[in-house]
Amino acid sequence: MTNQEKALKMHEEWNGKLETIAKSHVKTREDLAIAYTPGVAEPCKVIAEDKEAAYKYTIKSNTIAVVSDGSAVLGLGNIGPLAAMPVMEGKAVLFKEFGGVNAVPICLDTQDTEEIIKTVVNIAPAFGGINLEDISAPRCFEIEERLKELLDIPVFHDDQHGTAIVVLAGIINALKVTGKDKETCKVVVNGAGSAGVAITKLLLTYGFSHITMCDISGILGKDSQNLNWMQKKMVEVTNLEGKKGTLADALNGADIFVGVSAPNIVTKEMVTSMNKDAILFAMANPVPEIMPDLAKEAGAKVVGTGRSDFPNQVNNVVAFPGIFKGALEGRATKITEEMKLATAKAIASLVPDEELNENNILPEAFDPRVADVVSEAVKELI
Amino acid sequence: MTNQEKALKMHEEWNGKLETIAKSHVKTREDLAIAYTPGVAEPCKVIAEDKEAAYKYTIKSNTIAVVSDGSAVLGLGNIGPLAAMPVMEGKAVLFKEFGGVNAVPICLDTQDTEEIIKTVVNIAPAFGGINLEDISAPRCFEIEERLKELLDIPVFHDDQHGTAIVVLAGIINALKVTGKDKETCKVVVNGAGSAGVAITKLLLTYGFSHITMCDISGILGKDSQNLNWMQKKMVEVTNLEGKKGTLADALNGADIFVGVSAPNIVTKEMVTSMNKDAILFAMANPVPEIMPDLAKEAGAKVVGTGRSDFPNQVNNVVAFPGIFKGALEGRATKITEEMKLATAKAIASLVPDEELNENNILPEAFDPRVADVVSEAVKELI
Repeated sequence: MTNQEKALKMHEEWNGKLETIAKSHVKTREDLAIAYTPGVAEPCKVIAEDKEAAYKYTIKSNTIAVVSDGSAVLGLGNIGPLAAMPVMEGKAVLFKEFGGVNAVPICLDTQDTEEIIKTVVNIAPAFGGINLEDISAPRCFEIEERLKELLDIPVFHDDQHGTAIVVLAGIINALKVTGKDKETCKVVVNGAGSAGVAITKLLLTYGFSHITMCDISGILGKDSQNLNWMQKKMVEVTNLEGKKGTLADALNGADIFVGVSAPNIVTKEMVTSMNKDAILFAMANPVPEIMPDLAKEAGAKVVGTGRSDFPNQVNNVVAFPGIFKGALEGRATKITEEMKLATAKAIASLVPDEELNENNILPEAFDPRVADVVSEAVKELI
Repeated sequence: MTNQEKALKMHEEWNGKLETIAKSHVKTREDLAIAYTPGVAEPCKVIAEDKEAAYKYTIKSNTIAVVSDGSAVLGLGNIGPLAAMPVMEGKAVLFKEFGGVNAVPICLDTQDTEEIIKTVVNIAPAFGGINLEDISAPRCFEIEERLKELLDIPVFHDDQHGTAIVVLAGIINALKVTGKDKETCKVVVNGAGSAGVAITKLLLTYGFSHITMCDISGILGKDSQNLNWMQKKMVEVTNLEGKKGTLADALNGADIFVGVSAPNIVTKEMVTSMNKDAILFAMANPVPEIMPDLAKEAGAKVVGTGRSDFPNQVNNVVAFPGIFKGALEGRATKITEEMKLATAKAIASLVPDEELNENNILPEAFDPRVADVVSEAVKELI
């Protein structure tokens, strides 16, 4: 049986990867009178007087919604809300298994920005946080920004920030391995969608100042055509030298390549043209922008991918469960930029200096320390 | 400790009465590759080609949303979505404990009819059914009717139909006990909100033809003032004799009283004025329209209430878990009028003739046969 066949068989066997169970079992009349009428009126009355009490008496304290419109699902594209369900259920499973957070998949039968915003606002009372997932750019930027303004619970688009946090964690350790310095490093981010934009923003916040974004048409600059509103904002703060040209031109003399783009678009020649001890995060999935062995042959020092069968896997699962665990436990109303930085540093710190080398810059997805370390980093900033 | 104090303490201890757990545990890299990327892409692709496959591979097969806007919660009134959460969680607990149905509470931060409809349509892909709850009349009628038209999954407003089904079940058996006949029985329904309207409709469908509705201003008729659009529809098919007057006038010579109204509004004199072997369902909670002992003293033969400490409790929990269990297992797209009738008859049938008497007309809430018998009755009509 191939892995694909096995995945299909297991999904049929599970018939849904989640189950909702009662913490308050109802076996007797008294149970019923406490968990339901008439007893249930008591917490209702308290919450009606004091909204904060919802965190004491209801699932809002530890339940989030995993919200998608199915417009940008994995590498499958715009497959719609129903076909996105297995991914959102899987994400909810990871929230519970890695972070102890109850998560409910909500797949929306609309791809209209205003309707998505309104719907999420309308369902927010039952939830302690909103994890946005697989919503296409640039709509995802507006949806997240507007929801952050409108809601008093954390809103987090994992495709953006989860990826950015883990990439930054990897880069923090790759800098140590290579002895490079963030102030002088030249960074190329290839891919200007949700992940590429968020990675660039977080690297700027961390203190990188020489970042060039590229997309399929080459280097992005103020003269680039067909930029969306977010990309227009990004060219104000990147490529300050006003470079033009192709990805190959961008990589010439660069120190760090971050790819969230397409398979096999980086050649050995491009890597050779980079500065000594180049760092590459080639995260196109399942086939990276360049295979790690080729990149190494061409002189790269540190290579990370999205895959678990190579060293240095960039896997969001080291970030998002702990982030929401911490945000819920600490009753954060927002996931701030400071929290993202602190989370990246916390993840990086899980690889101690004595174990750090070019093939070991990130903790394993199954490292049992991760969620607690991340959640503590978030809670310290609430 | 009073029961109220105990309810509050237990709700704090539970800190939310529901938990979402993973059926697909993720302990190894292989688990991750099957439940999440890359394996999860396989069921996504199948569903993208064939929407029906969502019932094979996702939680849609056995998960419903319990949706409320918090506008008419228990006897507490319009306490809003957050304060309604303990009730909706409790309802979700009962769906699981009694029917094995996974249920997610969704409390809406809007009480606008159009927004509620749009929001429920938008979140519907993840769910196999929608249970509406504690939404005030007459908005609840329009919301349910419109959602039934718009969605291809069952939509059921339990305050209406759950109550109506259990009342009809009780009446079916009360007719046997008293030897009365539905064709000739005179019925008074007091309360013209969601439950009163639904009870009246279902009794008409069952074959009662002499029904008079009353509300706080007395008998409802074509000349009544301030009727909402649903009440105007109801006076077309009830009170065909054109009676006017008070509740007392309506009860004079009636056989059956159904109250979903207010405490202590039926007097002994009113009961005495009813026909011999009167049947009363006095379901105001916690204090009924007339206490059972008073009604009996005044000549009533069968008295039911909403309370568990008197005989003949009318408790929706004998209906809604089994109804959705059957609808989901049988993949019903609607809960039809025929299903409601069949459900009422199935519930009534659980009290065999040899056990039937004026103090035993309905099965116990904890009767373990109930959910299966009800779900089978629903499935036979799909």
